[in-house]
Amino acid sequence: MDIAILLFERITALDAIGPYEVLSRLPGARVRFVAEKPGTHRTDCGLGLVSDEPLEAVPRPEILLVPGGFGTRSLEREAPVLDWIRGAHAASTLTTSVCTGALLLGAAGVLRGLRATTHWAQLERLREFGAEPVSERVVVQGKVITAAGVSSGIDMALHLAARLAGDSVAQAIQLSIEYDPAPPFDAGSLAKAPPEVVKLVRGVIARAGSQ
Amino acid sequence: MDIAILLFERITALDAIGPYEVLSRLPGARVRFVAEKPGTHRTDCGLGLVSDEPLEAVPRPEILLVPGGFGTRSLEREAPVLDWIRGAHAASTLTTSVCTGALLLGAAGVLRGLRATTHWAQLERLREFGAEPVSERVVVQGKVITAAGVSSGIDMALHLAARLAGDSVAQAIQLSIEYDPAPPFDAGSLAKAPPEVVKLVRGVIARAGSQ
Repeated sequence: MDIAILLFERITALDAIGPYEVLSRLPGARVRFVAEKPGTHRTDCGLGLVSDEPLEAVPRPEILLVPGGFGTRSLEREAPVLDWIRGAHAASTLTTSVCTGALLLGAAGVLRGLRATTHWAQLERLREFGAEPVSERVVVQGKVITAAGVSSGIDMALHLAARLAGDSVAQAIQLSIEYDPAPPFDAGSLAKAPPEVVKLVRGVIARAGSQ
Repeated sequence: MDIAILLFERITALDAIGPYEVLSRLPGARVRFVAEKPGTHRTDCGLGLVSDEPLEAVPRPEILLVPGGFGTRSLEREAPVLDWIRGAHAASTLTTSVCTGALLLGAAGVLRGLRATTHWAQLERLREFGAEPVSERVVVQGKVITAAGVSSGIDMALHLAARLAGDSVAQAIQLSIEYDPAPPFDAGSLAKAPPEVVKLVRGVIARAGSQ
C-alpha cells in the first residue's frame, strides 16, 4: 500500500508526522515522502524533514496526504504541485489533508462542492475553492477526508487505519503509540479556549503569516 | 531559551516532533536538534529527520529532551551519548524524556531513586536503573520529567509550556495546534485496550525489537 506524504518548505512538522506515525504501522504500508524538489525541507523553526523522491516518482499513490503549514500559501499557485495532486487524486483510494493542506486540495479543485475542514483560523478560506467549511475534527466525503489543525492528523489517521485495515488494527496502532490523550488544559478548539487566548493566537498567526 | 532534542537512528519520529511542535512555539525558544553524528537520521519506516549540531555544540541546554525508539537499545551502551546526558542534566532547568528515551536517562544515572515512566511495554525495565516505574502519562520529579509512550510527549510538552511560560501561553499553543483530541477508539492505554489488541501489539513489538 503506497502512501505519499507531500513535503515542502515551511511545513508544520506535526501535520505530517502525526499521520505518518499511525499510517506507517499499517500492515503492508509503504510511506513515501515526496516533494517538488527532493531533499531537506525546513519548518519555520528550523527542523529538517527529508523527502527522498520527486513528485513524478509517485504519480499514483493509493493514499495521498497533504499536510499544512505557512508554506502552503505559495504552493497554492505552484502548478506542478497542484497538477500532481489532481493526478494522484484521480487514481487514489483516499485523498486526505491535515490543517492548511486542505487549501492545497482546494486549489487543485478537489474540494469543489464538498464539505471540508482545515485549521480553524483558515476555515472560511475553503469557500474560495467551492467547499463548504465545517468546524469538525475529521470530515469524510467519500474518499476525500480533511482534518482540522495540526494535531488532528493523528485522529484522522486512526480513522483511515480502521477503514483500511479494520478496527482491531487501528486500536493496536493507537495502543502502540500510547495515544490516550490527557492535555493539562481544555483549550484545544475555538469553542473551548478562553477569549483572551484566542486573541493571542490570532495575533501570532497574523504576524507569522505576513513574514 | 535553548532546548536540545536528541536525534539518533531508529528514533520514533512522533516522540520528538510532538514536543517540538509545542516547545518551538514558546516565546524565546530556540530548539536545536543534536546528535552524536549530525546529519540525517532514519526512523524504522524510512523518514529522515535532520540534526544540525553535534552533542558538544550544545553541552548545557536549558531544556534537554530525549525521545525514544528502538534505536535507544544500542545507545544505552553508547558512552558519548550518556556522558552528554549527564553533563546536560547537571546544568539543565528541565531534563525530560518521551517513551523509551527514559531508558537513556536511566542508563545515564539520572533516574536513580525517582518515580518515572516510559512506553508501557518497557515500563518494568526502569527498575534496572534504580527508578520506580509508574504507569502515569507524565511523571514530574522536580526538574526530571518523563512521559509515557510516543504521543504522550505532546501532553508533557504542554505541562512544560505552562511551567515555563504560564497557563495562558500553554493554552495558546494548544489552540494553535488545535489539540482537542478525539480518537475514534478508546484503546490508547494498557488498561483500556481489549486483551486481543494488547496481545497483537506485544507480538509486533517483540518482532521489531529483535531486528
